[in-house]
Amino acid sequence: MSANPHHYGLILAGGRGTRFWPRSRRAYSKQVLRFGGDRSLIQETVDRLRPVLPPERIWILTNDHLRAKIVKQLPEVPNSQILAEPAQRNTAPAIGLAAHILQSIDPDAVMGVFPSDHMISKPAKYLSFVRPAFKAASAGKIVVLGIAPRWPETGYGYIEFPQGIKSGGKQPIAVRQFREKPDLKTATHYVRSGNFYWNAGMFFWKTSVLLEALRQFQPKTATLLASLPAFSNRQFGRKLKQTFPNCESVSIDYAVLEKASNVVGFATSDFGWSDVGSWNALYELLPHDANANVFRGEALAQSATGNYADAEGKLVALLGVKDLIIVDTPDALLIADRSRAQEVGDLVKTLERQKRVNLL
Amino acid sequence: MSANPHHYGLILAGGRGTRFWPRSRRAYSKQVLRFGGDRSLIQETVDRLRPVLPPERIWILTNDHLRAKIVKQLPEVPNSQILAEPAQRNTAPAIGLAAHILQSIDPDAVMGVFPSDHMISKPAKYLSFVRPAFKAASAGKIVVLGIAPRWPETGYGYIEFPQGIKSGGKQPIAVRQFREKPDLKTATHYVRSGNFYWNAGMFFWKTSVLLEALRQFQPKTATLLASLPAFSNRQFGRKLKQTFPNCESVSIDYAVLEKASNVVGFATSDFGWSDVGSWNALYELLPHDANANVFRGEALAQSATGNYADAEGKLVALLGVKDLIIVDTPDALLIADRSRAQEVGDLVKTLERQKRVNLL
Repeated sequence: MSANPHHYGLILAGGRGTRFWPRSRRAYSKQVLRFGGDRSLIQETVDRLRPVLPPERIWILTNDHLRAKIVKQLPEVPNSQILAEPAQRNTAPAIGLAAHILQSIDPDAVMGVFPSDHMISKPAKYLSFVRPAFKAASAGKIVVLGIAPRWPETGYGYIEFPQGIKSGGKQPIAVRQFREKPDLKTATHYVRSGNFYWNAGMFFWKTSVLLEALRQFQPKTATLLASLPAFSNRQFGRKLKQTFPNCESVSIDYAVLEKASNVVGFATSDFGWSDVGSWNALYELLPHDANANVFRGEALAQSATGNYADAEGKLVALLGVKDLIIVDTPDALLIADRSRAQEVGDLVKTLERQKRVNLL
Repeated sequence: MSANPHHYGLILAGGRGTRFWPRSRRAYSKQVLRFGGDRSLIQETVDRLRPVLPPERIWILTNDHLRAKIVKQLPEVPNSQILAEPAQRNTAPAIGLAAHILQSIDPDAVMGVFPSDHMISKPAKYLSFVRPAFKAASAGKIVVLGIAPRWPETGYGYIEFPQGIKSGGKQPIAVRQFREKPDLKTATHYVRSGNFYWNAGMFFWKTSVLLEALRQFQPKTATLLASLPAFSNRQFGRKLKQTFPNCESVSIDYAVLEKASNVVGFATSDFGWSDVGSWNALYELLPHDANANVFRGEALAQSATGNYADAEGKLVALLGVKDLIIVDTPDALLIADRSRAQEVGDLVKTLERQKRVNLL
């Protein structure tokens, strides 16, 4: 199937990924980092979409800290389609803004929304769901991709499908309900039930459908966005700076998905998805050596097991240590127990309180 | 008591201190490192001797890798008195060489031999033993300082005094016997006995007495050294390069102390001596924070206890880690369990086998 000229991709790339500190910084956050190979997460995102979305139809929303880096990493995406949000207003205004722009360019536009900081190890399998998702969106539906849950994760929202569904079908299924991040007991129930899928933030819709939903459920934001001039107008940037900060900060899940009635989804089968939520998640994803260590760069290990060491440009010598995350950068060195990898973001909060801006 | 003009100090500074890798390198080894304050161990050695030995009467034996660094660190010691041994031949030839030189300068010379890589936290107390040691040496004795053992160390030699002696006396005591490094059972017996003291490598003798002892017990080395021209002779350096490598590689303990009959010692009381044998020994010596951590440079610690972190110039962030040695340098980073600190030297041996000369 050749790429449909009305299909567009919106890549959301405004996140910080503080749990990947000290590699991840304001101006060098998770999506522009290389974790496995020689391409950054956002480069891999563009790469894997290429069979269905040529770079000319990719749009990217990021922030002022990151824009220059992303422009440099993605020379194939037109410079003018890599936009910095004037303010952080969560996903609903950002997606609404992109829909507004695309609608003005192509009234038949169908857009897919893609996170920029996830890994997908089976891209062909993944595209086998992206294609029917675009198709269902073209027919006027709001479409989500659900990920079959592999453990009772309490950090994700869930999509509830009807009971008895099967994974991997290529026909859209009516979504019963969106469920916010559950507690562990509820998450365990979800996983056992078989009809609850992780909401990984991958959405598809006609821009006209999304804008109509915003008018209905987020009238203030919809009105503000509607007041913007055409994207080609030279006043666009100035007006956006004035308007955007007044939009309500709310997620697209809460603003639209949980309220709309025409939502369908795909209960996908495994395409090797991971949101790589922490250094430990990355450790789990990468290939291990015989002592369960993962080394990026050169290492000398003696009685050392289960460690992740990332200190490119220098030798890391490990002696009798176990299950550590070691990440070295020119101005900061992190040593953490792997079981505490989720708390790395707290260290960054502490640095923020201490106003250590050079380390953020 | 003013400094006696016939008293000289020989500081032995040829060691490598591989257990302090990656800070310690061939050209930057333990004795030239700063561990606590702002003076290196060899600078502290010269400093603490100053009340009894002015720098003009300090001589230093080191190697070609280190000489330039030591010259730089000790501008007060005459350049010509900082010598590089042409080859590593253990302590007997080195001490014999120094005695030969001093004897040619001052036939009444009395020399003290001092390691350059130990710490002494109570220098005044220490000098209260150095002074009578010089005095006993002036009277023709071979003199050693014994350190009251604080645990059954198996890595040191022991000095056996007669039973019933008391620590801290300022009168020399005849030494019964020198004991080589014991096994743990023997060391435990030594510590309980009360008359066994650690041999910390601090010796005093007239140069004439030492040279006579060498002639008696190490005739080959004595003959080789006697063949050297006077130190002031411009052929001295060239001849030394030819001669020294032919000396027998043997310790002064084995060559002289264990064999001589005129050996006396001081059973010293605590002057805060430590040979700082490993990163863990250093950790134990330095002041700890409320969570038993020792940080050199800036740190951010969350649920971290008992760690030693030395990464000057960058922030070290610790999260949920315990009892680690962390030492960061521009080309190598060491992470070791504190209980394994003795094995750091093995890592260096591995690097030697791998011919990683830039890391040695």
